[in-house]
Amino acid sequence: MKTISENRAFGGVQGVYSHASEACDCEMTFAVFVPPQAEHGPVPCLWYLSGLTCTHENAMTKAGLQAHAAEFGLAIVFPDTSPRGAEIANDDAYDLGQGAGFYVNATEAPWASHFQMETYIAGELRDLVTDNFPISVHHGITGHSMGGHGALTLAMKYPGHYQSLSAFAPIANPTRSDWGRKQLGAYLGPDETRWTSHDATALLKDVGWSGDVLVDQGADDQFLDLLMPESLVKALVETRTGHSFRLHPGYDHSYFFVSTFARDHVAWHAERLQA
Amino acid sequence: MKTISENRAFGGVQGVYSHASEACDCEMTFAVFVPPQAEHGPVPCLWYLSGLTCTHENAMTKAGLQAHAAEFGLAIVFPDTSPRGAEIANDDAYDLGQGAGFYVNATEAPWASHFQMETYIAGELRDLVTDNFPISVHHGITGHSMGGHGALTLAMKYPGHYQSLSAFAPIANPTRSDWGRKQLGAYLGPDETRWTSHDATALLKDVGWSGDVLVDQGADDQFLDLLMPESLVKALVETRTGHSFRLHPGYDHSYFFVSTFARDHVAWHAERLQA
Repeated sequence: MKTISENRAFGGVQGVYSHASEACDCEMTFAVFVPPQAEHGPVPCLWYLSGLTCTHENAMTKAGLQAHAAEFGLAIVFPDTSPRGAEIANDDAYDLGQGAGFYVNATEAPWASHFQMETYIAGELRDLVTDNFPISVHHGITGHSMGGHGALTLAMKYPGHYQSLSAFAPIANPTRSDWGRKQLGAYLGPDETRWTSHDATALLKDVGWSGDVLVDQGADDQFLDLLMPESLVKALVETRTGHSFRLHPGYDHSYFFVSTFARDHVAWHAERLQA
Repeated sequence: MKTISENRAFGGVQGVYSHASEACDCEMTFAVFVPPQAEHGPVPCLWYLSGLTCTHENAMTKAGLQAHAAEFGLAIVFPDTSPRGAEIANDDAYDLGQGAGFYVNATEAPWASHFQMETYIAGELRDLVTDNFPISVHHGITGHSMGGHGALTLAMKYPGHYQSLSAFAPIANPTRSDWGRKQLGAYLGPDETRWTSHDATALLKDVGWSGDVLVDQGADDQFLDLLMPESLVKALVETRTGHSFRLHPGYDHSYFFVSTFARDHVAWHAERLQA
């Protein structure tokens, strides 16, 4: 693991690191915020998965999460959203390939050789940060847009990995959305039965979520039709899954929306991870 | 005035606007955050001047000021740091020309025709935002690095314009620093007597500041030798100017430093502007 930068922030340290990833077969960059409370022992860890086009850096610099993480005593991990590099497959579209890993393990060419983001996030990077940072066994997961999709699906696919769950404007039903069908088809192939384990709405009915979940959504989100939160809420109700879904008039899909509600999410996770 | 974007944030609106500037003789972009309290009447206004290489956008997205502005009921104005455009003079160095206006009115070629940032900030943009946003007559000013220099010098040069003053890691004594001598020479010419009214340390002794001032500085700031805060503190003591100067071990020159102490600055200004 290489240290790219470390900056003191809110009494803790915001670091950026890179490492040779086995899962993605390339150098991967990620960021970790360690709060001041970690000086006294391991702290719970919140995973923040970012959306389309983002690297580890966008949320690290724009979401304002560090202030809240320092207040509540959580570490935060900001992974990248895909493998990266000139030699790695890509697509001209912003929503496929690099910057758009969709948190799945690709099985199809040309993606399968590097796009193994599910294993990377839920396995390899989890082990790496647990071994190298003062992080306890209590992990929560959240994310924005494609990252909200990642948080919801990984939490359900890996029971016991995450004890708390939330999402900002998640892609909630990708098997029925143009933000999903294109990517799941490319990465997993045309057999749609292989897509459903990467769809939060479907997963809720198939395997469910053992805890409760907080989902925030802007009512003026320009991508609301692609996100389909109403499908997720329907499944949450049908499965009797405890949740708080909040639709906020005036808010859009930007980091101004994320930062506005960031403190509520950190508090949500802290309450569950420190219980 | 053209609206480039408006995003709801923390119950208020973060907007980006442009206008044809007379002072700079070009189109200028700026950002304004209007807090939710403005629905009930005009609110005090905090000016945030940015540092070298920045546009209006850096602090708007990275400093986390909106949360605090919404908490305390202040508007925030984020101006650009220079005129911009392909037809406008520039320099290959990051610290001269576009992105490096230094908040002075240039008198020398090739800068004088557009680089009139002092008049722009303290005059034209002030009038524009006062006329177009729900802003009261109570204004405070702060800034980071070159912007801290701008805040300190404009506050002293324009008595009555600003009722509260603070700075993050300001260029505190530019007439004696390589961050200053180069730029003041280029913009104002070789006669150093014309530089002193753009040096906070000199201005304190020459005209003084009628209020008190908050200055935060990282002890691990990679540019500490160029900033020279010790000169400013010496002048503050000699002139018996009330102040709080805080040197923070471990903190550097980045926005992680600014965002960590942003709430303290907004609270400082709110206390003085709402008194």
